[in-house]
Amino acid sequence: MSEVFTLTPEPDTLIYTFGGNPAVLRVPAGSIIEIETEDCFGGKVRSVQDLPSAVCDLAHLNPVTGPIHVEGAQPGDVLAVHLAQIRPRRDWAVSSTFPHFGALTGTGTTAMLHEALEERVWMYEIDHDAGTCRYQARGSDFSVDLPLDPFHGTIGVAPAAGERMMSVTPAAHGGNMDTPETRSGTTVYLPVHEEGAMLAIGDGHCRQGEGEVCGTAVEAAMATTIVVDVIKNATIAWPRLQDDTYLMSTGSTKPLEDAYRVSQRDMVGWVAQLTGLDLLDALQLVSQAGLAPTGNVVDTNYTMVAKMPSSLLGGVDIFDGVHERLRDLGRSYLQHR
Amino acid sequence: MSEVFTLTPEPDTLIYTFGGNPAVLRVPAGSIIEIETEDCFGGKVRSVQDLPSAVCDLAHLNPVTGPIHVEGAQPGDVLAVHLAQIRPRRDWAVSSTFPHFGALTGTGTTAMLHEALEERVWMYEIDHDAGTCRYQARGSDFSVDLPLDPFHGTIGVAPAAGERMMSVTPAAHGGNMDTPETRSGTTVYLPVHEEGAMLAIGDGHCRQGEGEVCGTAVEAAMATTIVVDVIKNATIAWPRLQDDTYLMSTGSTKPLEDAYRVSQRDMVGWVAQLTGLDLLDALQLVSQAGLAPTGNVVDTNYTMVAKMPSSLLGGVDIFDGVHERLRDLGRSYLQHR
Amino acid sequence: MSEVFTLTPEPDTLIYTFGGNPAVLRVPAGSIIEIETEDCFGGKVRSVQDLPSAVCDLAHLNPVTGPIHVEGAQPGDVLAVHLAQIRPRRDWAVSSTFPHFGALTGTGTTAMLHEALEERVWMYEIDHDAGTCRYQARGSDFSVDLPLDPFHGTIGVAPAAGERMMSVTPAAHGGNMDTPETRSGTTVYLPVHEEGAMLAIGDGHCRQGEGEVCGTAVEAAMATTIVVDVIKNATIAWPRLQDDTYLMSTGSTKPLEDAYRVSQRDMVGWVAQLTGLDLLDALQLVSQAGLAPTGNVVDTNYTMVAKMPSSLLGGVDIFDGVHERLRDLGRSYLQHR
Amino acid sequence: MSEVFTLTPEPDTLIYTFGGNPAVLRVPAGSIIEIETEDCFGGKVRSVQDLPSAVCDLAHLNPVTGPIHVEGAQPGDVLAVHLAQIRPRRDWAVSSTFPHFGALTGTGTTAMLHEALEERVWMYEIDHDAGTCRYQARGSDFSVDLPLDPFHGTIGVAPAAGERMMSVTPAAHGGNMDTPETRSGTTVYLPVHEEGAMLAIGDGHCRQGEGEVCGTAVEAAMATTIVVDVIKNATIAWPRLQDDTYLMSTGSTKPLEDAYRVSQRDMVGWVAQLTGLDLLDALQLVSQAGLAPTGNVVDTNYTMVAKMPSSLLGGVDIFDGVHERLRDLGRSYLQHR
Repeated sequence: MSEVFTLTPEPDTLIYTFGGNPAVLRVPAGSIIEIETEDCFGGKVRSVQDLPSAVCDLAHLNPVTGPIHVEGAQPGDVLAVHLAQIRPRRDWAVSSTFPHFGALTGTGTTAMLHEALEERVWMYEIDHDAGTCRYQARGSDFSVDLPLDPFHGTIGVAPAAGERMMSVTPAAHGGNMDTPETRSGTTVYLPVHEEGAMLAIGDGHCRQGEGEVCGTAVEAAMATTIVVDVIKNATIAWPRLQDDTYLMSTGSTKPLEDAYRVSQRDMVGWVAQLTGLDLLDALQLVSQAGLAPTGNVVDTNYTMVAKMPSSLLGGVDIFDGVHERLRDLGRSYLQHR
Repeated sequence: MSEVFTLTPEPDTLIYTFGGNPAVLRVPAGSIIEIETEDCFGGKVRSVQDLPSAVCDLAHLNPVTGPIHVEGAQPGDVLAVHLAQIRPRRDWAVSSTFPHFGALTGTGTTAMLHEALEERVWMYEIDHDAGTCRYQARGSDFSVDLPLDPFHGTIGVAPAAGERMMSVTPAAHGGNMDTPETRSGTTVYLPVHEEGAMLAIGDGHCRQGEGEVCGTAVEAAMATTIVVDVIKNATIAWPRLQDDTYLMSTGSTKPLEDAYRVSQRDMVGWVAQLTGLDLLDALQLVSQAGLAPTGNVVDTNYTMVAKMPSSLLGGVDIFDGVHERLRDLGRSYLQHR
Repeated sequence: MSEVFTLTPEPDTLIYTFGGNPAVLRVPAGSIIEIETEDCFGGKVRSVQDLPSAVCDLAHLNPVTGPIHVEGAQPGDVLAVHLAQIRPRRDWAVSSTFPHFGALTGTGTTAMLHEALEERVWMYEIDHDAGTCRYQARGSDFSVDLPLDPFHGTIGVAPAAGERMMSVTPAAHGGNMDTPETRSGTTVYLPVHEEGAMLAIGDGHCRQGEGEVCGTAVEAAMATTIVVDVIKNATIAWPRLQDDTYLMSTGSTKPLEDAYRVSQRDMVGWVAQLTGLDLLDALQLVSQAGLAPTGNVVDTNYTMVAKMPSSLLGGVDIFDGVHERLRDLGRSYLQHR
Repeated sequence: MSEVFTLTPEPDTLIYTFGGNPAVLRVPAGSIIEIETEDCFGGKVRSVQDLPSAVCDLAHLNPVTGPIHVEGAQPGDVLAVHLAQIRPRRDWAVSSTFPHFGALTGTGTTAMLHEALEERVWMYEIDHDAGTCRYQARGSDFSVDLPLDPFHGTIGVAPAAGERMMSVTPAAHGGNMDTPETRSGTTVYLPVHEEGAMLAIGDGHCRQGEGEVCGTAVEAAMATTIVVDVIKNATIAWPRLQDDTYLMSTGSTKPLEDAYRVSQRDMVGWVAQLTGLDLLDALQLVSQAGLAPTGNVVDTNYTMVAKMPSSLLGGVDIFDGVHERLRDLGRSYLQHR
């Protein structure tokens, strides 16, 4: 039986970095945690008149809930976080452009002489029963219902080497990877760098295209159920993901081909380790059977994901079945809640 | 009624560049063409002992079949090429590493001091009935059947500005994009830069992972049925694709984020044009609903694909229905062949 | 005694690609050639009212003079081109911004949603006696004299593999490298890919900052004296340069770090070959003593230059002294002209 | 009269991050500080047998001395640090390759399948009187004296947003920029993000080629004299530099073209501000007169430098003459010491 914990942050307990924050919750490995998260704007953008650059405190964007100290997690271990359920907490969500942020605009680092593009807000109505959110154009009557596919853009632990990173940065500790793969049903594996791992989660998205090209997703406050566990003796260098169909490796760096390289190199090594193939044989299998969807091309690092169908690997043991175990724990809990 | 043509190249009529070659076939718009293509190694790698760098003429890699002059195609038009059927012509296919080529090795342009990785060949048995090709590890007994998903890595026309490009290069004229999206059932839209467009096709792949990380796919000679048409008054800057579900834009350049930018920028403009949305409203819709799979991260340019479900756009007219028309022509022909 | 040739192009003999053009002059190795070149705008931008996008034919930008067939140059050889003297042919020069071209603007490949920056022309007065060209601001009275430092932005030969490339592209064949290092006094080494090498030169710059950040230099028509020679049995992969002080390697590709890698890798190999050092010892020496100025960050490929003081290499023999020999030939000719 | 302080760290007071460390010294603005720094290996590599990966604690590379609290420095101010004198403290220095680190090797982020290159150490003898350090090849008798040109690879302040960054990272706070421009005689301008600025310095280099291609310079412990001051009401976004000849802007990010863009964009803005030119006129002047040497292409961010001759700007006032004032204070102090 898992213990169940609840973590509902107050505005003043939200945090904005990975690393450097005291734990707000301490749980044993194997616990179920009900978490509430605020949206990336801190809930302050509530109509198309609320321009983020005007209503938000720019030093306090992308709040995350945590950190959670998972007992027994030691540097060199792997933290497994199963995302059992992610539900929008409101009946609306929001997206926007933001000055000098996004893939198709000059930015602080892709520095140019252009003025910023127009800052514009889009409000999305959520139909929980239909499982949709409604895109409504600002400049015309065009609207269309898009399927809900909720995920957390930001999930991570304390970074290595005593670093403390803004919550908007994705890197080896996880963070703001902004890949739709961190959805309900996925288990996230994170490298532990600090005692207790110090997990934090936020930046809920009702859905998002691959790459998050305008810079923001369909941003929403979330009520999320996770199940956490600690995997001993299983070092990883970058976050990995697993769902019922795929193994996934991530890479978050620049340029984008290096993010691709990191994710593919990690997947090749993982496949080799699981199957006993040598590295070149694993490279060949990944080359022909792997997927490579874009995570984000807008954040301080870009994220790519490498996906391999686990069915092709011949019944291998993946982290001792932790994904299936946490998934079943989560399902059982949600059914009886 | 479409006319039907056949194009079966002899070894000495295969070509190795886009641009600069005389037409080997001249067809009216609306024609069906049965094409045979050779594999990227010119058919010379037939066992695991045949190392490509030893058995191939390095100045003659990646042969393509063509060019085909499509009557009526003028600079500024769009050539539509529907890939009705792509079938491997042999019961085997081949993949390999190649010295200093691939995403996880130093190359001629990502120049490093490392010796080349081992050059290794993998032979794939094709089971046409089962629709699979068999991966067989070289260093162990591990094997697994992978689904056939045949496509052409290379499809393009004569480039702009009188340029003549190696067939291994993907760019605005198409070429070696190496995206699995150019599979059976897809219509490829190419910008016409020269009278007759001068279409050429090759580099058949039984299947490929996204990014083609080792540098080659499951390479095979193909028997392919295409249907071609000319779209007047419809300028495009980069190749676009369409299947029954998705609109797709491509970008082929370096670094990979610029390939992403090109493909997304093109899709945003296309969606705006089709729906009447302004550019920012189109950007928002693409940001939340688009996919961004990797094409290749190994060729002289890298390729990214932007995909939008056409169902979200509200019954818009896409190039006057040419995809559906060519698809139906191809189906009808194949059923009665 | 060298033979002396003159090459003065007419507007209709200027060319716009490397590769694919018949020779307009045929000279023996060892010849001196007096060449005239037109500016990158074809001489059509003559006042601040002449916006390039309005007055130029966009399919005919960056004209080059040539190609020159150098007798005896065979694929696998090296062509040595000593730039003995480069002089502006007029008393004015011109620079401009150009829509969606430059390092600090969205471009066709760094694709963005911004409107183009303002297109603006700057005219420079040349004072031949003082050796200066005068920058005059458009929006104020600010002006300043800048030293003349004439060079050719574009110098190259026919590319490998039968390719034909726009003159605005720098790559392994040379082309539009836009590095100030190709100034008077420098010998340029180019890999020969086609019989006669097929040398062409253009894009004279009165001076240029490193990177050519706005997209154009102080553009001028030039009267240039070169001395050419053929080096047998001396294969190079990328253009190299030599002046009285430095050996230089170039790399032209994207992203910019790959251009850096190409140029540094080539220099490490060159130093190893000249000194007998192994590659790691050569790497160490280049790491501590080399310079790495930017060539261009605006063209279809970016260019970086690796520079090593030849004095540090201990009196090594560099291409059998061809630089000194051609330099002295050129000086002697110019003194007696 | 300036106060003079001394800061000689003990091994256990060296730090390894910017941000998150308590001040070890507190000084008024205008102070002179004598600082000692340890080399990037913590002084542990003392012979060619001492492989860094074996003798160093990998969590404690690149120690820096500090942080120094400069009184009166408030967020939004600029800290000016004049490097009056930088002298090697020993008669030897050291360089090395390091596994999977450098520009011409696969790394943790340019991830590849290659084994690491050989780890090799080079010891340099320093001749203080001659002003040289001697390169000695490991695989042959080749040796050559290289001029001493001492600088600090790492100089920075506490980062913005409460971040805490490894000392090996260069970014907007300064840090490990590894540009030879931070030599004796240069004034470094750093943006203040935290009260007191929290300056730290380390990573002394006897000299270095541009780009630091092998990953390390001629590494040495240094005795350094700095003069610090606080500039109120003068916000900067990225570190800037000034010596008697040049204004310099820096950019540290990836890919390398973005580092170039950041540095050039900053320089264009700075020139516009100083001269009253509008941005396009400033862009034009920088385009024709600026230099763009490479800083580093090996660290977690790459660094480019934009240089403009201050003489071209017409006697403008640069931060109220702080460079000249601190330079003269330093000279006067050193003459009378």
